Amino acid sequence: MGETTPRTVTIIGAGTIGLGWTALFLDAGLRVRVNSRRPDAERYVREALRMYAPTLPGGARDPEELAAALEFEPDLARAVDGAHVVQENVPENLALKQELYARIEGAAKPDALLLSSTSTLLPDDIGALMTDSRRVVVGHPFNPPHVVPLVEVVGGERTDPDALDEAEEFYRSVGKFPVRLRRPVAGFVANRLQSALLQESIHLVTEGVVTVEELDAVVTQSIGLRWATVGPFLAFHLGGGEGGLRKWLTTLGAGLEKGWAGLGRPRMTPEVIELLIAQADQAYGGRTYTDLSLERDHKQNAVLRARAGAVPG
Amino acid sequence: MGETTPRTVTIIGAGTIGLGWTALFLDAGLRVRVNSRRPDAERYVREALRMYAPTLPGGARDPEELAAALEFEPDLARAVDGAHVVQENVPENLALKQELYARIEGAAKPDALLLSSTSTLLPDDIGALMTDSRRVVVGHPFNPPHVVPLVEVVGGERTDPDALDEAEEFYRSVGKFPVRLRRPVAGFVANRLQSALLQESIHLVTEGVVTVEELDAVVTQSIGLRWATVGPFLAFHLGGGEGGLRKWLTTLGAGLEKGWAGLGRPRMTPEVIELLIAQADQAYGGRTYTDLSLERDHKQNAVLRARAGAVPG
Repeated sequence: MGETTPRTVTIIGAGTIGLGWTALFLDAGLRVRVNSRRPDAERYVREALRMYAPTLPGGARDPEELAAALEFEPDLARAVDGAHVVQENVPENLALKQELYARIEGAAKPDALLLSSTSTLLPDDIGALMTDSRRVVVGHPFNPPHVVPLVEVVGGERTDPDALDEAEEFYRSVGKFPVRLRRPVAGFVANRLQSALLQESIHLVTEGVVTVEELDAVVTQSIGLRWATVGPFLAFHLGGGEGGLRKWLTTLGAGLEKGWAGLGRPRMTPEVIELLIAQADQAYGGRTYTDLSLERDHKQNAVLRARAGAVPG
Repeated sequence: MGETTPRTVTIIGAGTIGLGWTALFLDAGLRVRVNSRRPDAERYVREALRMYAPTLPGGARDPEELAAALEFEPDLARAVDGAHVVQENVPENLALKQELYARIEGAAKPDALLLSSTSTLLPDDIGALMTDSRRVVVGHPFNPPHVVPLVEVVGGERTDPDALDEAEEFYRSVGKFPVRLRRPVAGFVANRLQSALLQESIHLVTEGVVTVEELDAVVTQSIGLRWATVGPFLAFHLGGGEGGLRKWLTTLGAGLEKGWAGLGRPRMTPEVIELLIAQADQAYGGRTYTDLSLERDHKQNAVLRARAGAVPG
């Protein structure tokens, strides 16, 4: 930060997450070097930029203008050479990542910040074949990374605390909202919460209480709206009125445990999977992926702007 | 509907939920008669109208103007006499509600729609002491009812399907989003989903992975934002890319069950309750209930307007 020439970020792996990061970093004025094994990487990334350019958080951008600071380098060593930051997005395969990070170590600047988008692996494991993995940090985004603010930042036993600070600072500098986990947990935080809600959602659909489409409406028209503005604890703190969370927990705390005991434990049998797919097809099959995801991202950006500007008065 | 004189709605019980309904129904142009045992009901309701008037979904209203169509009637029989709709909001005590509905039956028009805000009881049980409980329907709102769109509509074995249709139509006419449950389930849908997410939230805080405040930030900056615009099933349908929910479930379905097995099962011990309260105090104790809830509701209204107006282009 504070340099006059733009910083260079190397993106390793051009799947959905890598493409989202590419769009975001270019939008933030960084020089982006994409390393991908795809023979058609260049065409593929430019296509993605055209798709993401209308939903960049600061407003639509010209994809050609964005691509001016874009480079492609299929050779890994050359791709990370001189980069200030590496954001790695290869498949969730530990052996693959370990071998990759050992090769990165041989070619990157010693002070390069090595960020992994992994949603399941930990820095010490990813860096197990490196001589020094102190600058390996998990920076796990939410899809699509150019729209959703959260980045879960996770270090390991061997991670340098300065590298964690720099990772947070870097993500803030491109408009993201980093949250540093105080200790690692399998699946990290947001995906675990999502999984808990999905478990009960699948239970209620398989029990015939609501359809897939009705369940989605329940969520967007109540708890989704609420959790876009206040998190679950603040919501219950306010649910307790003037007495706050203390009142809420001391009057309803026992009922909570009883309610948890009654939550569903669905099994993902082939029948359950087919039921969910059939209902999702019924609800959403008439529209294309591009159409639905553009609508989601336009709405997500509108919500972000709205809640930032909503001042009581 | 379609009458020239405004319809009359009787609100029974002037707690938080009853007050929110009162503000909403007045805003929608209905005549509202409040029945409450509170000796200071009138002062109390007028104060609440002043508090809710700035966050009415269609924009701020003058509380005095709203109150022009407001009546108070402490006698139950006179309160329900001639009402088209009754929205009941007394405490969640089955015997209390049963006795109340029997008295309502003796005084209300036979075609009055009898709606209960209960979050735990079922129409057949509530109406067990009535001669005819066919017009008793659960219309369970989310707090605050004047802001959050969802109303869960639940019937029983004895409920007339026409009464369910009328309930949905009534809620739509005042701007709500009714979802009719296909069969009753303890706690209904939104609170069960909320409870599932809260269980894992409490687990992650007690395990020291994040604080109460950090967990709230994770939610508002990721899944809350997402679920305000697409429900969980549509989110995963899009997570599967062009392959949709089928691709997502067939590649990740097995992992889902494994993840569920690893979710937390916290106990609400006094220590856990004190930890949560201490962290919530630390995070939110510096601001008043009124201040925080006004901010929540301003933001929720801003989000509602934003997502309604966000059109891809």
